[in-house]
Amino acid sequence: MINAQLEFRSDNCGRAAPEILDAIVRCNAGTALGYGADDLTTTLQDQMSALFERSVRVFPIPTGTGANALALASTTTPFSAVYCSPESHINTSECNAAGFFGGGLKVTALSGKYGKLDPTALADAVRSAGKGMVHKSQPAAINLVQATDLGAVYTCDEVAQLGAVAKAHEMITHMDGARFANAIAHLGCTPAELTWKSGVDILSFGVTKNGGLLSDAIVVFNEKIASNIGFHLRRAGMIWSKMRFASAQIQAYIKDDLWIRLASQSNAAATALAQSIQRIEGARIIAPVQANEVFLAMRPEALDQLASDGVLFYRRGPELARLVCRWDTAESEVKQLVKLIEKATLSA
Amino acid sequence: MINAQLEFRSDNCGRAAPEILDAIVRCNAGTALGYGADDLTTTLQDQMSALFERSVRVFPIPTGTGANALALASTTTPFSAVYCSPESHINTSECNAAGFFGGGLKVTALSGKYGKLDPTALADAVRSAGKGMVHKSQPAAINLVQATDLGAVYTCDEVAQLGAVAKAHEMITHMDGARFANAIAHLGCTPAELTWKSGVDILSFGVTKNGGLLSDAIVVFNEKIASNIGFHLRRAGMIWSKMRFASAQIQAYIKDDLWIRLASQSNAAATALAQSIQRIEGARIIAPVQANEVFLAMRPEALDQLASDGVLFYRRGPELARLVCRWDTAESEVKQLVKLIEKATLSA
Amino acid sequence: MINAQLEFRSDNCGRAAPEILDAIVRCNAGTALGYGADDLTTTLQDQMSALFERSVRVFPIPTGTGANALALASTTTPFSAVYCSPESHINTSECNAAGFFGGGLKVTALSGKYGKLDPTALADAVRSAGKGMVHKSQPAAINLVQATDLGAVYTCDEVAQLGAVAKAHEMITHMDGARFANAIAHLGCTPAELTWKSGVDILSFGVTKNGGLLSDAIVVFNEKIASNIGFHLRRAGMIWSKMRFASAQIQAYIKDDLWIRLASQSNAAATALAQSIQRIEGARIIAPVQANEVFLAMRPEALDQLASDGVLFYRRGPELARLVCRWDTAESEVKQLVKLIEKATLSA
Amino acid sequence: MINAQLEFRSDNCGRAAPEILDAIVRCNAGTALGYGADDLTTTLQDQMSALFERSVRVFPIPTGTGANALALASTTTPFSAVYCSPESHINTSECNAAGFFGGGLKVTALSGKYGKLDPTALADAVRSAGKGMVHKSQPAAINLVQATDLGAVYTCDEVAQLGAVAKAHEMITHMDGARFANAIAHLGCTPAELTWKSGVDILSFGVTKNGGLLSDAIVVFNEKIASNIGFHLRRAGMIWSKMRFASAQIQAYIKDDLWIRLASQSNAAATALAQSIQRIEGARIIAPVQANEVFLAMRPEALDQLASDGVLFYRRGPELARLVCRWDTAESEVKQLVKLIEKATLSA
Repeated sequence: MINAQLEFRSDNCGRAAPEILDAIVRCNAGTALGYGADDLTTTLQDQMSALFERSVRVFPIPTGTGANALALASTTTPFSAVYCSPESHINTSECNAAGFFGGGLKVTALSGKYGKLDPTALADAVRSAGKGMVHKSQPAAINLVQATDLGAVYTCDEVAQLGAVAKAHEMITHMDGARFANAIAHLGCTPAELTWKSGVDILSFGVTKNGGLLSDAIVVFNEKIASNIGFHLRRAGMIWSKMRFASAQIQAYIKDDLWIRLASQSNAAATALAQSIQRIEGARIIAPVQANEVFLAMRPEALDQLASDGVLFYRRGPELARLVCRWDTAESEVKQLVKLIEKATLSA
Repeated sequence: MINAQLEFRSDNCGRAAPEILDAIVRCNAGTALGYGADDLTTTLQDQMSALFERSVRVFPIPTGTGANALALASTTTPFSAVYCSPESHINTSECNAAGFFGGGLKVTALSGKYGKLDPTALADAVRSAGKGMVHKSQPAAINLVQATDLGAVYTCDEVAQLGAVAKAHEMITHMDGARFANAIAHLGCTPAELTWKSGVDILSFGVTKNGGLLSDAIVVFNEKIASNIGFHLRRAGMIWSKMRFASAQIQAYIKDDLWIRLASQSNAAATALAQSIQRIEGARIIAPVQANEVFLAMRPEALDQLASDGVLFYRRGPELARLVCRWDTAESEVKQLVKLIEKATLSA
Repeated sequence: MINAQLEFRSDNCGRAAPEILDAIVRCNAGTALGYGADDLTTTLQDQMSALFERSVRVFPIPTGTGANALALASTTTPFSAVYCSPESHINTSECNAAGFFGGGLKVTALSGKYGKLDPTALADAVRSAGKGMVHKSQPAAINLVQATDLGAVYTCDEVAQLGAVAKAHEMITHMDGARFANAIAHLGCTPAELTWKSGVDILSFGVTKNGGLLSDAIVVFNEKIASNIGFHLRRAGMIWSKMRFASAQIQAYIKDDLWIRLASQSNAAATALAQSIQRIEGARIIAPVQANEVFLAMRPEALDQLASDGVLFYRRGPELARLVCRWDTAESEVKQLVKLIEKATLSA
Repeated sequence: MINAQLEFRSDNCGRAAPEILDAIVRCNAGTALGYGADDLTTTLQDQMSALFERSVRVFPIPTGTGANALALASTTTPFSAVYCSPESHINTSECNAAGFFGGGLKVTALSGKYGKLDPTALADAVRSAGKGMVHKSQPAAINLVQATDLGAVYTCDEVAQLGAVAKAHEMITHMDGARFANAIAHLGCTPAELTWKSGVDILSFGVTKNGGLLSDAIVVFNEKIASNIGFHLRRAGMIWSKMRFASAQIQAYIKDDLWIRLASQSNAAATALAQSIQRIEGARIIAPVQANEVFLAMRPEALDQLASDGVLFYRRGPELARLVCRWDTAESEVKQLVKLIEKATLSA
């Protein structure tokens, strides 16, 4: 009999990496100027520039929603449209923060596979969007979630294709990298290759879901759009006065490839889980498992059974469960889960 | 000869209290549901209710600007006016976040003494504001900064008087408690007496300036206005997914009166500084020193000298300096500063 | 040979009804208080209340977009969702004014037939919208376009069904009545039956497209939501100082059933056009012609031919044309158009 | 005994000029494309360009508040400050529409004489505004009301001085020309001299108060800022579909100097009134009467008497009345008013 609760609800249910906590504790010495004018935040600019192989601007920011909404709002006009996947976080789970900060920015969903934008659908949508017509929200940005909200990962080529469509229409390419580390770990490419070398102008650099705790970041690759972001953040109450404690987190996160190690662990757990599920009759995985999420389809009764057996997960429909692995998800947890899924498939 | 730089720029230049860092590290165990649905955040509600001697709602929030702007925006209509002191933080230093989040909320400054609102001026302003006239932003809230932006502290009676005017006109009373702890430490009253017992409906509960690092909080005393705040915060990207790491900070902050001890230290440093300055010819203090800030008037050349001698401070005018003490400002720092002020008064 | 250009682009290309112009001219006497405090605007309240068989509040407003956006924005919270048809004007043609005025109001399209909302789809959408979850824009309003943007008309029963779903979920029912007169003329019901008796809370009362010129109106049936609208309008610059000249237009519009007569004329022209088209091979009508619009499907080359023969119309796709009849569309214009459509079907 | 009510409340209480009504009636022929794509609106561009002696962009717009708020919002960033007089319409009488449309635009009042901005005070304010500091709303525009809200008129030199300060700090110069015609009539200069030749970038061109009825206009002199205005207007519901009926009004207004004739009439009435008042003991005029407004100071009891004698006017304080002359204010009305003022000065 299995009693313990098994946590597969979200990667934000997990712990912070000890290295990141240590960094916070370590930076608590002396005094420092507020609002990002401290040495640690300055150093962070250089470290992130090195990581991305070009000069970038980095803005630590409390939440991913803040990063997404302000990345979009500060780089578009207030009569703009942003194209995204129907499953994208900005469309489903941020209480329309992008629309609010964007002064009526129209979040426009375009169907695609596995939570991705499709370049042909995008090009068609832009062509029929009524550019120059005052009645129409003007195409201004695209939003790519990496990894997607169905657990798939855009390849560099896919990003580049979409980035090219965006550029051809003078649109900004925004990557919601809530699980950017998982994508990098999966692809084995460089951060530069997956972003500015593929046309990304601005990135929500996710930290929280992958061992961080209280800070994500906006990374800007396009100097032209960087100048106003500080004002947008300040007006949004999104600049900590004791910024050094946030910058320290991000420094620790990228130091010695910690972020890649953590993401590799959650990716590996999800891969192991998916491989086991594929051998179970009555259980089906609906999207490629390329990051740390598994979307599992089963009969409603089977999902009910799974829940009553103590597995914690979110239901995305009567027959669809999302199972998320954390950087600290243990092999034993995966094994227990697999057993319970097997059991559930046999339930009435 | 004095060489070291003396830090008197801001309390947000200071360190975090070790107790608060410890709490962050300690809470990093197991898994917890996101966005405030964790046990620590639930417990925090009870602890703050105990502290304030009534049932309250607490929302940890990344910044004081966020707390102020969203406290006001979520409790007023988008055609409202909020009355504040000309020196108030929302009026001078938040890039008009209140106006932005409030959808055009009119921040309306009324002169008063030492950064305080004056009850008579307030009543006059409301009476001539054109209540019910569509041309006029409608009086909806007052904003009291505690301690004020000139370092003074509202007494409970003063708050109650202003709260009564607000209530008589169906306005919300918001207290910007960025230095709430300093005010409590100065007055020796209870948190309840200084807030809801004196008519305060909603409080920005400052933590960062007094030994916190990455979280402040909104505290709501008026049930009627509490229901929508969560949505406003989420839409603003102001709810951390790993909320427990914020709630832990606030728990540690209020535990065993830590917050009062820290504020007493910075208050004491400021008082000592002020007493020494009062004996110096050519130096003048322009507002009562009741919290941790000293506003020092000197000749421009004297302030130039002070700066070139390595004292770090902000200038509020050619002849006016703001000197802020931190919870960890050492007695020796104050003594050094006093010597340098004496020296500066003698400069050409 | 047919030479003259035939105008079928929009009903807003048409003239104003002489009765309405006369009313403007006639009211130009004496002086009157501004911003709606004049006698004509007061009288209009009574006349509209009589027309709708209950006490209503009427706000003349310059445009239909203003009416829609402010009707929605002033009756919802800034974290709301409004459900509409994908073809609805607020979703396609108003530069997201509803999203802007609504402070991030989420315009959420649900598929339905002929530009209508479907009650089952609506109920499903609301049920899965995440009521009470801060991540989700909260269901707050529905938007019914009458006649729809595909030329069909909701019956009173259809409105009542949708209104009941809305009410069950505490949502406001907004009717975008840009072609309200056409719907009434088609159904032969009373304005009361089509609105508040069927659950409509607030109506954009269209005048411009049906013989008006510079004013539409918001009509409010629900006292609870009426109180703030004036402030929302004023803040939006939507209250004329010389309001009497707008109220006079609306008075003339409803006097002696002028509005119904005008709409009956454009409806009749569209019906005649549709009946003739149905006999033409190669031409197809894709939605019920119940108001003054005909949606005509033909081969792309045929539509090209039609355009080059001097017919003015908007294309809704390569194979889809919208043909709109005005109150003053002549029988001869319809006949000419039919001949040109016949000719076009035969083109290469 | 005098019985009839005397109307001195506002110029917007007056009639429309018959020439303008005629133009509306005359343009009601044939069909025309909507939303400003008609011939009349195109012609208007040329006529206004001729009037202003350079190529301008003209946007007819329903209200002066709309013109002001959108002129400012569409030419500034959402973290901007606009400087104006404390008495300015945008600061006192538009329910903070500028703040709302401007996404938190900070309306910042600077004291000056007779409702004017003062160039020295402006330069000082900008210098201490914290340009480049994210905590501070950034100086972006100035707002000059012409004639001012105290009835005075800026000379061309005064405008040029302020425009130079604005330009030196890369700010937009906006003129709220609600009574632009009155200013031109008073100064005898050309519209070009009073606007772009003196540094004005964008003008709210008032029509309503001076014989118009339902339309004012935005006039843009600076090509760089013109491109987005159409989108801002459409998103605000501020573009009529039957635009030709608005453009016709403005055409008639400027034709054959009608606008100057009308303004000269109201100016003359105000001047006559002021001259008579100056001879009355116990009555005092507090600002230069250079347009069509007289600000009259009397004892409170005298003003009470005036009101009870049937004079309609607005009180700006216990001892201050605003008396406004219309283009159709008759000489006899002025004479009656003077008698009643004399009588009032003698009252208990």
